[in-house]
Amino acid sequence: MVKAAIVGATGIVGQQFIVALKNHPWIEIAALAASERSAGRSYKKAITDASSGALRWFCEEPPVEEVMEMPVQNAIELDISTIDIVFSAIESEQAKILEPKFAVAKPVISTASAFRYDEDVPILIPGINSEHAKLLQIQRKSRGWKGFITPIPNCTTAGLAITLKPIYEAFGLNAVIMTSMQAMSGAGRSSGVLGLDILDNVIPYIPGEEEKVQRETQKILGNFEEGSIRPARFNISCTCTRVNVREGHTESVFASTQKACEVEDIARAMRKFVGSSGETELPSAPKHMIIVHEDPFRPQPRLDRHMEDGMATTVGRIRKDTALKNGTKYLLVSHNTKMGAAKGAVLVAELLIRDGYIS
Amino acid sequence: MVKAAIVGATGIVGQQFIVALKNHPWIEIAALAASERSAGRSYKKAITDASSGALRWFCEEPPVEEVMEMPVQNAIELDISTIDIVFSAIESEQAKILEPKFAVAKPVISTASAFRYDEDVPILIPGINSEHAKLLQIQRKSRGWKGFITPIPNCTTAGLAITLKPIYEAFGLNAVIMTSMQAMSGAGRSSGVLGLDILDNVIPYIPGEEEKVQRETQKILGNFEEGSIRPARFNISCTCTRVNVREGHTESVFASTQKACEVEDIARAMRKFVGSSGETELPSAPKHMIIVHEDPFRPQPRLDRHMEDGMATTVGRIRKDTALKNGTKYLLVSHNTKMGAAKGAVLVAELLIRDGYIS
Amino acid sequence: MVKAAIVGATGIVGQQFIVALKNHPWIEIAALAASERSAGRSYKKAITDASSGALRWFCEEPPVEEVMEMPVQNAIELDISTIDIVFSAIESEQAKILEPKFAVAKPVISTASAFRYDEDVPILIPGINSEHAKLLQIQRKSRGWKGFITPIPNCTTAGLAITLKPIYEAFGLNAVIMTSMQAMSGAGRSSGVLGLDILDNVIPYIPGEEEKVQRETQKILGNFEEGSIRPARFNISCTCTRVNVREGHTESVFASTQKACEVEDIARAMRKFVGSSGETELPSAPKHMIIVHEDPFRPQPRLDRHMEDGMATTVGRIRKDTALKNGTKYLLVSHNTKMGAAKGAVLVAELLIRDGYIS
Amino acid sequence: MVKAAIVGATGIVGQQFIVALKNHPWIEIAALAASERSAGRSYKKAITDASSGALRWFCEEPPVEEVMEMPVQNAIELDISTIDIVFSAIESEQAKILEPKFAVAKPVISTASAFRYDEDVPILIPGINSEHAKLLQIQRKSRGWKGFITPIPNCTTAGLAITLKPIYEAFGLNAVIMTSMQAMSGAGRSSGVLGLDILDNVIPYIPGEEEKVQRETQKILGNFEEGSIRPARFNISCTCTRVNVREGHTESVFASTQKACEVEDIARAMRKFVGSSGETELPSAPKHMIIVHEDPFRPQPRLDRHMEDGMATTVGRIRKDTALKNGTKYLLVSHNTKMGAAKGAVLVAELLIRDGYIS
Repeated sequence: MVKAAIVGATGIVGQQFIVALKNHPWIEIAALAASERSAGRSYKKAITDASSGALRWFCEEPPVEEVMEMPVQNAIELDISTIDIVFSAIESEQAKILEPKFAVAKPVISTASAFRYDEDVPILIPGINSEHAKLLQIQRKSRGWKGFITPIPNCTTAGLAITLKPIYEAFGLNAVIMTSMQAMSGAGRSSGVLGLDILDNVIPYIPGEEEKVQRETQKILGNFEEGSIRPARFNISCTCTRVNVREGHTESVFASTQKACEVEDIARAMRKFVGSSGETELPSAPKHMIIVHEDPFRPQPRLDRHMEDGMATTVGRIRKDTALKNGTKYLLVSHNTKMGAAKGAVLVAELLIRDGYIS
Repeated sequence: MVKAAIVGATGIVGQQFIVALKNHPWIEIAALAASERSAGRSYKKAITDASSGALRWFCEEPPVEEVMEMPVQNAIELDISTIDIVFSAIESEQAKILEPKFAVAKPVISTASAFRYDEDVPILIPGINSEHAKLLQIQRKSRGWKGFITPIPNCTTAGLAITLKPIYEAFGLNAVIMTSMQAMSGAGRSSGVLGLDILDNVIPYIPGEEEKVQRETQKILGNFEEGSIRPARFNISCTCTRVNVREGHTESVFASTQKACEVEDIARAMRKFVGSSGETELPSAPKHMIIVHEDPFRPQPRLDRHMEDGMATTVGRIRKDTALKNGTKYLLVSHNTKMGAAKGAVLVAELLIRDGYIS
Repeated sequence: MVKAAIVGATGIVGQQFIVALKNHPWIEIAALAASERSAGRSYKKAITDASSGALRWFCEEPPVEEVMEMPVQNAIELDISTIDIVFSAIESEQAKILEPKFAVAKPVISTASAFRYDEDVPILIPGINSEHAKLLQIQRKSRGWKGFITPIPNCTTAGLAITLKPIYEAFGLNAVIMTSMQAMSGAGRSSGVLGLDILDNVIPYIPGEEEKVQRETQKILGNFEEGSIRPARFNISCTCTRVNVREGHTESVFASTQKACEVEDIARAMRKFVGSSGETELPSAPKHMIIVHEDPFRPQPRLDRHMEDGMATTVGRIRKDTALKNGTKYLLVSHNTKMGAAKGAVLVAELLIRDGYIS
Repeated sequence: MVKAAIVGATGIVGQQFIVALKNHPWIEIAALAASERSAGRSYKKAITDASSGALRWFCEEPPVEEVMEMPVQNAIELDISTIDIVFSAIESEQAKILEPKFAVAKPVISTASAFRYDEDVPILIPGINSEHAKLLQIQRKSRGWKGFITPIPNCTTAGLAITLKPIYEAFGLNAVIMTSMQAMSGAGRSSGVLGLDILDNVIPYIPGEEEKVQRETQKILGNFEEGSIRPARFNISCTCTRVNVREGHTESVFASTQKACEVEDIARAMRKFVGSSGETELPSAPKHMIIVHEDPFRPQPRLDRHMEDGMATTVGRIRKDTALKNGTKYLLVSHNTKMGAAKGAVLVAELLIRDGYIS
């Protein structure tokens, strides 16, 4: 079994890692780390509210009994000598400092954005750009690390990149225009939107989000050539909004392809898409990376987010677009705290284990 | 005073007409009509639930006392000989039959879509395409009517056409891509979305809506030339969704202009836009047709829908678009049951009274 | 295997029966019936919207493939000669006519209220009043039926009666005061509350609900003596409201007991409550009929409704009441469309099979 | 004009004070104070978010232009020598320190709970217990202050005490049982509930709330005798919950009266209730302190909270209770951030000005 440490284990993403690794066939949780405040206590004590006695467990799944008595260690003092892989669930500011410390010795898979845009850092989605993992060897060399850092994309990027991939492969892309209607869980708990503000409302701005999605999508769909990733060269423009939905990002996509194609061609390309090399066989992978609905009232976040335990991207309303050259439009739903967060990172770990990057 | 009949007076749009005409300086309610079931009763009785005694009044504004004792007449038998104008708040199927009956003798201003796409029927938004009213003379002649039918646009079209107008005038348009996040009140009560279905959800499909918005926007921004309207020739593509908001449609717009322009140019054109000929002086008109926010967290439907009693369109986040040629993107909020429905129709009546089409 | 017919199979409660019976160890679905409109089609066709092709499947669980090709029969012509039990998921008005027709020959377990208040009809909750099943023999005789009708309680009654039972047994009851905050799914789809009406709101009235809950709770907790049920003699008063929650009724209960008791006594009585005769061993039964939280922020409908697949009642905030003699107050959450509807009815069937009433 | 200082002016309650005092006939805003961080800036700058430029204005009403250029002072250094009255909108912890400092010299009207339970401090609701103001003279003497501190009740207490008053006067009270369904705005912004947590949910616990409501209601309805308030002697028990509503607390009340009475008696007593001495003539007072609905679907928070600008308490569903001796039950809606907060405090100021306590 691969021994994993979860850093930032007491927060919502950390808890999602714990759920995603429960009964995992290849990976076991060997260490939990968090801030100094939690250090030295059992996991259960660390997430128990002192005054009310309430358990601060944020996942829909029940608390994982197996970790409740594990000790929580201080992240900045964590000894990873017996650890094979570090899952990082910390904020970007901290990630800038802590992740390189771990990467000196061990592979780090991160949900933070801190290193996503570095030249020698891939943003991996297994089945979409598995071959970008080769960049990790170059990263190791250039940084003199035994380990490496590999972040997953922003939760809004994931569904977009996944659904664009079969289109890009089959027909090429000129331009992509996307408007997101994002769920509240994407904002986390510390900077979460108040019920007061989102009720009967749409928040039209998520700071930094649009730039991330645009840049990451081009990088993920880019080619790995001569030791570096050349971002895909289509134009992309996003508007990201927050709606009163708990989980599951909805995205309205308009795409202009290089080759003309019919709605049925797009649907077929999405349906038969299984990744580049058997990624749907990985333990956390969905059997169908993309599920295409005929029902025009789908996808809906409440009905579709849980498809294949939140790892499938659901698509519907594929139609001819009437504004763009060779235009197609569709909607997608993607589970922002499953494929778009911890479980997506576990899937990356599985790819890297399978392909020998982690052992 | 211009004497108005409201047909479909007991429904939600009919009630909004009653509110919009309360204390109106030019127009007075002279007759209320509805289906046979309500006919012969006072308005109050007609909207009172027999079993519970509850008043079925659906507007946020309090019930209008002045009409409570007015009799409700049977719409299909309504005598309009002493009426100057008919406001029609009925469903499209009925409108096809009833509106022409009234139009034989009198002007009909309608919220229904039944006649919107007829060659000789304008879709008026005062200040945006006031000159299209000239088509009404041609309609009268061609149909041999003393009156005419003039529908207002779909509630989702209104805000889009209004905000595109100053852009189109100043810079021309190549293409428009729009994703809407529409409020529930737009669906009315009979086909309204269940709480069960919209809670924690987005509904990605509103049957017929996208085609209406695309077609109407091109028609409204078209030229009136040689006795007919030539639709504007830019491309347009929409995706219309329903979100858990009570009132106020939010729209995410991406526009490609013919001439290059800066964000500031667009903002300035919108801010200074006052219509073609003093329409903002009409009694129901907003003082500012378009309000442009600097705050990137605006517009929000809950905060902005009521601006200028729901008659202003609110715009924010005007930015460079990165996918389209000469691209600009922005968000707008428009009050779907004020400017987008009854009060918008009253504004049309005011324009037509001012310009001598109704007397 | 016991062969079951589901009458009203295409509606939401009918679908919940299909889910509740999937892979059932003792019962198999042998017939599906609905209105004449659906008759003669496959189940899949019967629930497919003709115009859009969308599947009208309303459960959270995925559609049950096993029944998709089963034919739907006309309920009023249903041949039940080879059927062992009829699950009725129809409205009360229809139930009055159809259920006696079936009961002449076979046992009918119903979610409708039509017969709940008849002298010879028990309202069964296994583990709470299993012994009331004896009344079915008397019903058979008095009505000259081979079968019988046994309805389950109103969804709001279920959680209240279950949590009161251990209190009533241990300490007696003088009076119960309850305010409910009910989920929208309880209203079904045909009379469902509009999103427009429930957003940012509470609806303070559910016609008929309070009387049902009051009467049913007294009947369920009553004694079976000399061939009839003597309702329990405590006073009870309810106020039932609807809140913006999808599933899971929350109830705020104040109870005055006959004997003095401490909060810990009540909590202990609830926790150790396992029914009268091994009912928690039945296939659909929860392992814990009542789950008592220490965390004062529980129970919450979204977090607790799914406990033990919606069959457990969750309780929290057990405290001394300061207004009533020997007063205790607490909150409960009960899953209105699991224990409170179809799956609760399946549990009744299991009890009756185990105890020889159905074979 | 009476010159007022608002302390805590930049928070949500402070902003509500600014709105409540706009165009006030008797009171003008003479000073604004907040924490050191805001001090020295204009009000507009103090509530402008530095990074985004967004105005942090939280009221539904538009920002009050008249105060935008007023300087914000440091609350702990505020010079109140030219001030006639201090409105305190600060948290309880700060209130304990700051309010006595101001009260040495000037009257302080507070929304904080810090001093509510002190023997020599009344909790005033004009029209309900105006005569308790006499206690302020005693407070002045006993504390050696020229001013005084008078807090308003908790927002959940207000509607309960107001509706119980006419019942208590006419029929006496034995016991009151109340379950609240409280709006989110009551929690303020700093400790506000996350959208993530309240969506599709009810939160069954609001720390400290129940005890406050119970104690305050008895004090407010108590007699002022021989220099002190004797709390009313009925029993009272509350359960307070939070629901997904923006503004407007709903309360389900069960009351046992000393004298028998009919539903009509209660309704009549509430309807004709106008306070003890012309309080409904005060500038901010509602014309009808209590509005009683016949429609059983009322009161609803969204429809009724704004009645008489949020200063009326709305009641409906008055019915016989079936559990308590001489029992009556009803529901009420009260605007928690109008009558229950700043505007309620302004109403207290008006009473005290009228009756000579402030000059």
